[in-house]
Amino acid sequence: MRPKLILFGDSITEESFGEGGWGSALAHHFSRKVDVVLRGYSGYNTRWALKVAERALDGLQAEEGEGSAGSAPGGGGDRHHRPPLAVTVFFGANDASLSDRISAFQHVPIAEYRHNLHALISLLKKRWPSTTVLLITPPPIDEDGRLRHPFAENPSGLPERTNESAGAYANACVAVAMEANVPVVDLWSKMQLFLGWEKAFLRDGLHLTADGNRIVFEEVAEKLRQHGLSPETLPADLPLLSEIDPLDPLRSFEN
Amino acid sequence: MRPKLILFGDSITEESFGEGGWGSALAHHFSRKVDVVLRGYSGYNTRWALKVAERALDGLQAEEGEGSAGSAPGGGGDRHHRPPLAVTVFFGANDASLSDRISAFQHVPIAEYRHNLHALISLLKKRWPSTTVLLITPPPIDEDGRLRHPFAENPSGLPERTNESAGAYANACVAVAMEANVPVVDLWSKMQLFLGWEKAFLRDGLHLTADGNRIVFEEVAEKLRQHGLSPETLPADLPLLSEIDPLDPLRSFEN
Repeated sequence: MRPKLILFGDSITEESFGEGGWGSALAHHFSRKVDVVLRGYSGYNTRWALKVAERALDGLQAEEGEGSAGSAPGGGGDRHHRPPLAVTVFFGANDASLSDRISAFQHVPIAEYRHNLHALISLLKKRWPSTTVLLITPPPIDEDGRLRHPFAENPSGLPERTNESAGAYANACVAVAMEANVPVVDLWSKMQLFLGWEKAFLRDGLHLTADGNRIVFEEVAEKLRQHGLSPETLPADLPLLSEIDPLDPLRSFEN
Repeated sequence: MRPKLILFGDSITEESFGEGGWGSALAHHFSRKVDVVLRGYSGYNTRWALKVAERALDGLQAEEGEGSAGSAPGGGGDRHHRPPLAVTVFFGANDASLSDRISAFQHVPIAEYRHNLHALISLLKKRWPSTTVLLITPPPIDEDGRLRHPFAENPSGLPERTNESAGAYANACVAVAMEANVPVVDLWSKMQLFLGWEKAFLRDGLHLTADGNRIVFEEVAEKLRQHGLSPETLPADLPLLSEIDPLDPLRSFEN
């Protein structure tokens, strides 16, 4: 039975199975090893995420042995629960919306953002102590892109998100990861190492292009690898074709 | 809690979360509605699939309420099980390997292929009576592509799969679907309606290009839609951004 990798976040997670998406790439990377489960909620900030986290994650603990109903007296208590291998927590792009512009209803003050991230980590660690919790900072913001592709009418001529604000939230996210001793992908910093990041990685100043998705995939896969979660180290589900004896294929399926 | 769509098949399923893959496209199509679960086994034929089906599908019945452990006396018996919405069964490309060529160890005689498909449908229907079982025929074969991209040394100069053989298995698959009264996507026929299908849809004479993936996605999504499974009719997991009152966002999360 396969373990799970849960992707919990906002629209950048919800969209991650679109063309060239980082979620699909992770599912392909972990093919035959891990079930990648999508829990992306477009527009959500950490305040809302904290409200719904228990519901969003309900049912995501793999339960073995359900095929053999009634195998143990007493029922559920004897079943073996298997926690997810890892959960990515990828919020902040909405929290960082400015409080006096058109996306103000999604804004969360930075002190509360820090507190909410800690609370999400605690909730996950209480539920699944062995699970790797991986934070991802919000991406940088291309303000020109935000003005060209507004989500709603924006007569002010001012972007509802700025790169400076996203950077402050990204720094807060990195600080929370250090305090909670969990790994973090600093996407805000990483992307800005590349010349022309504004258009190369962001299709509307906020959401990812195919190249932007590739960076997220590579960074997340590398962090997971550093925590022992890679295709090379995880067992495959059922025999691989290369392990099947052409002279006696059925013998491979006996155990 | 989200229901599942399970993709059970061979390499064309296992690869379906690769770049432009039909599995990813389904996951994106059903975003916020359905968890798409990948159970693709490269090289497997129906004989092997039947041997492993119980193990491959173990744990894939969603179980609600596990978050509230011990909420009901007696344990597991009181929990509410939720079967998958649908399972795609996509085998035949390996069964149709010719019995006297280099992939002979994967060959399954056509009468046994029919029998095995019926057995897989019965197993699924017994496990989950309400679940839609959707058969998919093997794709057509571009023999030139198979000779240019052999999986193993092939000194014979003869392809290990032919389009004629794939067509016979595709017809058998359609016949099984009619007999068992389950829907089927006749991919073998559908693809050959397009001029230049050999290179447009198949990258090595057997596996799918991006355009080939798109056809599988469109056909599967349309069949599921005909059986009531579409993004328009399925409920979303948690409130959509458009449903959240900007003046009082938290009220949306109260129920």
